[in-house]
Amino acid sequence: MELQLIEQLRQKAPINDSRVLLGIGDDAAILSAQAQDVVLTVDLLTEGVDFLLDSTDPQWIGRKALAVNLSDIAAMGASPTAVLVAVALPKKNAAELARRIYEGMQPLLEKYRVALIGGDTNTWNGGLVISITAIGHVTKHGALKRSGAKSGDRVLATGKFGGSILKRQFQFEPRIEEALYLNKHFKIHAAMDVSDGLSLDLSRMATESGVGVVIDADKIPISQDAIQLAKENPQPSPLERALFDGEDFELILATSPEEAEKLTTTQPLKELESHVLLTDIGEFVSESGQWLRYAESGSLQKISPRGFIHES
Amino acid sequence: MELQLIEQLRQKAPINDSRVLLGIGDDAAILSAQAQDVVLTVDLLTEGVDFLLDSTDPQWIGRKALAVNLSDIAAMGASPTAVLVAVALPKKNAAELARRIYEGMQPLLEKYRVALIGGDTNTWNGGLVISITAIGHVTKHGALKRSGAKSGDRVLATGKFGGSILKRQFQFEPRIEEALYLNKHFKIHAAMDVSDGLSLDLSRMATESGVGVVIDADKIPISQDAIQLAKENPQPSPLERALFDGEDFELILATSPEEAEKLTTTQPLKELESHVLLTDIGEFVSESGQWLRYAESGSLQKISPRGFIHES
Repeated sequence: MELQLIEQLRQKAPINDSRVLLGIGDDAAILSAQAQDVVLTVDLLTEGVDFLLDSTDPQWIGRKALAVNLSDIAAMGASPTAVLVAVALPKKNAAELARRIYEGMQPLLEKYRVALIGGDTNTWNGGLVISITAIGHVTKHGALKRSGAKSGDRVLATGKFGGSILKRQFQFEPRIEEALYLNKHFKIHAAMDVSDGLSLDLSRMATESGVGVVIDADKIPISQDAIQLAKENPQPSPLERALFDGEDFELILATSPEEAEKLTTTQPLKELESHVLLTDIGEFVSESGQWLRYAESGSLQKISPRGFIHES
Repeated sequence: MELQLIEQLRQKAPINDSRVLLGIGDDAAILSAQAQDVVLTVDLLTEGVDFLLDSTDPQWIGRKALAVNLSDIAAMGASPTAVLVAVALPKKNAAELARRIYEGMQPLLEKYRVALIGGDTNTWNGGLVISITAIGHVTKHGALKRSGAKSGDRVLATGKFGGSILKRQFQFEPRIEEALYLNKHFKIHAAMDVSDGLSLDLSRMATESGVGVVIDADKIPISQDAIQLAKENPQPSPLERALFDGEDFELILATSPEEAEKLTTTQPLKELESHVLLTDIGEFVSESGQWLRYAESGSLQKISPRGFIHES
């Protein structure tokens, strides 16, 4: 099973990439020495927590497993190079399941020119588990850590938040092009992708940076999905969904007020194919903690950061 | 759960390694640009296939999950640098289980100066899955692929084979020092580690190299464990166990007859702390296939390569 699939992938996708000196088929893959530093991340997805195998097309599961990793590479302002894919497959229809998972990854691999350089395909008496390791390289503009936010910095966010459970948790676009563009043209102090919720991940960024954060409640871009869900069930509200739902996989960024002004008024991201929205949603402050600010009343409400923790 | 454990690991093991520019705690880790090419491999271990959680100390499971990856790095003749560890933990006692798994990895991480640079700790309603990605770098002596064996080359093997199920599947030493030593001092044409059985993995090496292989049945170093098991149950025989059992994690190497002579008579590996045995067990031949040769009769017996395929 393992060998068959690897052999198929090897024949199907001969790697046409000078950085990959040795791809699938040996004890390990080899990437060419680079002048740039190497970025590495792993995300493991499990059935029942990150996806429901019974009700989800395996292609979307494969796409998601890859996209969450590419989102982490994007969050570093780095360029993705290659991935290693390890799966534990339930025995029933394992080969077909594996094939569809890999097919689901293919469009993203091609779009971002990411080489599948290795993997480990297993079957067992258990549910589906997919563990992907993504490798990227830091560009000459440096890596974007989450620890660089300064008091006084603005909080910028790509895209819209909340309600990803409807479809975006599987269909979101990793913000690779946007991150590379922003890192190249602007002075970004810190960046992170939102996997566990805007509130929780902003608090992590603030904590790592030794600051606090005030979020302008009225400025948070709320997705249509969050509004749709609130029509069906008024609690949680669209704003609460945007703050706490998670799996948005948008970027949050810290940058100086001057740079933020430039960024949000010149709307540079319109130059990209994605035309992704970039919104100023708050500021980092010296006192640790998280607050919601309402424009009308001017009131500040301290909140406990929370989000979607990936446990079933 | 995830954050707690990562935070603990981060505090417990501050990374004192100039190659690791950024370790645990951000969206991704960063390794310093190296003059050397980068080697990458992933192995995923599942409960019920690679280990039994009920009857095995989790420390041994953690050690094995790491050691099989280091063995792949060794098989490339490369030097290990760092690992990323992704786990799916059954919910019952998940934190304690994770702690013991990581403790089991610690001695090998320290011994080979391998940095734990990232990971993903999950809980779910399923069995234990551990997926480790190992990163190494190619030395100036180059990488050892499995495809370089030539007709006329000798087959060399480290250590002894068979019966690993008794204890060696958990306690084996990845042949990192030996591989680096051999790659530095001798002309090795090809190398591979034996995970699925001497017969099967030798056939893979031969196939990748476009050659066949004759194994001298009387020369195969048979482990005491294989002999022990045969005392309890005469079938399979010790020789069959050595050929087909798998999980030996010894190295098989291809080298010229002259180099093999030097290697096995000067016993260079005695210079290493390990004093590992190196044995000439056969030769690669131009005709594809696998044969057993018996010294006494001089007879050649064609065999179908087989081994232990990791499926439950």
